[in-house]
Amino acid sequence: MKIVCSKQNLINGVNIALKAVPANTTMSILNCILITAKDGYIKFTATDGDLGIDTKVDGVIAKEGIIAIEAKIFSEVVRKLPDMDVSIESDDNFVVKINCGKLNFEIKGHDGSSFTLLPEIEKKDPITVSQLTLKDVIRQTIFSIGQSDTNKVMSGIHFFIKENVLKCSSLDGHRISIRNIELKNSYDTVEAIVPGKALGEISKILSGGADDDVEIYITKNHICFIFDDTTVVSRLIEGKFFDVNKMISSDYETKISINKKDLFESLDRTMLFSKEGNKKPIVVRISDGILKIEVNSPLGSMDEELEIKMQGREVNIGFNPRFLSDALRVIDDEVIDMYLVNAKAPCYIKDEKDSYIYLVLPINLNNI
Amino acid sequence: MKIVCSKQNLINGVNIALKAVPANTTMSILNCILITAKDGYIKFTATDGDLGIDTKVDGVIAKEGIIAIEAKIFSEVVRKLPDMDVSIESDDNFVVKINCGKLNFEIKGHDGSSFTLLPEIEKKDPITVSQLTLKDVIRQTIFSIGQSDTNKVMSGIHFFIKENVLKCSSLDGHRISIRNIELKNSYDTVEAIVPGKALGEISKILSGGADDDVEIYITKNHICFIFDDTTVVSRLIEGKFFDVNKMISSDYETKISINKKDLFESLDRTMLFSKEGNKKPIVVRISDGILKIEVNSPLGSMDEELEIKMQGREVNIGFNPRFLSDALRVIDDEVIDMYLVNAKAPCYIKDEKDSYIYLVLPINLNNI
Repeated sequence: MKIVCSKQNLINGVNIALKAVPANTTMSILNCILITAKDGYIKFTATDGDLGIDTKVDGVIAKEGIIAIEAKIFSEVVRKLPDMDVSIESDDNFVVKINCGKLNFEIKGHDGSSFTLLPEIEKKDPITVSQLTLKDVIRQTIFSIGQSDTNKVMSGIHFFIKENVLKCSSLDGHRISIRNIELKNSYDTVEAIVPGKALGEISKILSGGADDDVEIYITKNHICFIFDDTTVVSRLIEGKFFDVNKMISSDYETKISINKKDLFESLDRTMLFSKEGNKKPIVVRISDGILKIEVNSPLGSMDEELEIKMQGREVNIGFNPRFLSDALRVIDDEVIDMYLVNAKAPCYIKDEKDSYIYLVLPINLNNI
Repeated sequence: MKIVCSKQNLINGVNIALKAVPANTTMSILNCILITAKDGYIKFTATDGDLGIDTKVDGVIAKEGIIAIEAKIFSEVVRKLPDMDVSIESDDNFVVKINCGKLNFEIKGHDGSSFTLLPEIEKKDPITVSQLTLKDVIRQTIFSIGQSDTNKVMSGIHFFIKENVLKCSSLDGHRISIRNIELKNSYDTVEAIVPGKALGEISKILSGGADDDVEIYITKNHICFIFDDTTVVSRLIEGKFFDVNKMISSDYETKISINKKDLFESLDRTMLFSKEGNKKPIVVRISDGILKIEVNSPLGSMDEELEIKMQGREVNIGFNPRFLSDALRVIDDEVIDMYLVNAKAPCYIKDEKDSYIYLVLPINLNNI
């Protein structure tokens, strides 16, 4: 195989493929990026067994072929090349020669034919969303997926498409995040639990343009995202997702409106006193016109008053400040509405159209 | 005590004082910043026993007094305050109240009178250098101080002032760095071994202006730097520094001139193959018009040719690439001169005026 590409195209391609290279693995071929030069295309492919990425790289094919190169050293070499055209050539012994002006590298590659390719996904009737929307919806729900391995289903985001609405949900036992997105077209009902890891990596390589689309294909065991020159395939999480509609209620006793930035910054300050595993709860005292936040810890104490608009009853309630602050961080509205019932019932942060719903469970005030 | 300062002035003062707060200590008072409000000045002081920093903070004194506050939590609180005037008040029980609008913090402070103040240094006949020069000279010599504790003298930079020249030297057994600086005035001969740690911290807080001066006072056991509103006092390292003049020779068999950036980038590339403790040496082959760098490792190999101007004999020599690259990183010249004798003698990088001299020992080619 022999190809010639610009340094910048190589870097772009390597950076995308790297997202699927596992951090730790004993299987050496999984640590590789596969370079395929065939049928007029240069492609970089990487996979960790669950997640696979494949991206086209602009360049010239001097000789067709495939070669697998250890991803870490390949990406480091590419990054340190002078800004010139680079030729990459492999021989029958899988030795890779990288040449750039008067600079030569030689790296031992691996037989590309032992590389596991991405599963073939039937590409029929794609669901189309803009890159901007997909990136947003991941950012706005990924933070509340479960971190522990106890319940595999919690480690993913639930994609549920019905007619022209995409509903993304995640939960971790303390909170639920839901985003409802209106799509341009209507689709048959389909659902999938997509691993959080895959979505995290995808959102890093989405350029995020409002006018650039992503095509999504969902099969029984896989989801496939196609955008720009890149294809990402992820295995789905098996199992049935929670019925979040049953967990959500629209009853409330107290509704407040508050400036999001002020509340976020105040919560951020309280976390100075809750470093040890974020366990230190805060007390929120809601009365007419004023929301008062209090925290006490062996390190010190803090209180702050924020202006609010209130409807309904006064209420005192305890929270893990991080759970509220995680939700506020991803909301783009300047003023948010919070709905409460009492000190023991969930608190909701949501907009009027339910385009986002964040449920946060309180902490029993008796334990504070 | 009660003072009122802007958030920004507090942050500036805390950031400077923090540089002397030890990372790990069992003595809780050393973890504190001492606030002194007296005689019309607000001062923040911190010390780790060897290094002490004291800086003035603009603000209003409502009530004179002193209080010691745990530096870490104080700096975190100050950073997270809204951008407004802040009042800091302590009572007889050493409780510190920090107030900013409708936000209140309460932190347990400590009795300021148990704080060890900086030693009093006799301020007579200062040596004056610009902040820019002092910052440069530290940067250009600090990288080659010895890291191990085996020889305490190596862990400092030797300051030697004679007439109107300041000579700064450091060495670590593999290399020597020397900078000669011309001063505006002449001084009595004086020398001091200044701990690298102290100089590293000072260089972080020097604003680095060419027109801003630093006054330096050297006593038997201490060095004191005064600049802007800040005083830094460091204990000196006891002992006699090496006679670096005896280690340096001006004889050579080969002199080359080379573009610094090209050589630096090439050395940087070779280090891709010398990750494990930077032990993998490179071979440098110098012949008429060409310097060729080669490296071989189990990960792969690299070679690169660079253009040079050469006088004298051809030579092949082995190096730890990091030792060359560390020196090149701090040299500001576009083209540098290197002087060599043979494969077993030190290599010198220096300018014609000897304003900088970097000696690097080679690695025996037989061991490569």
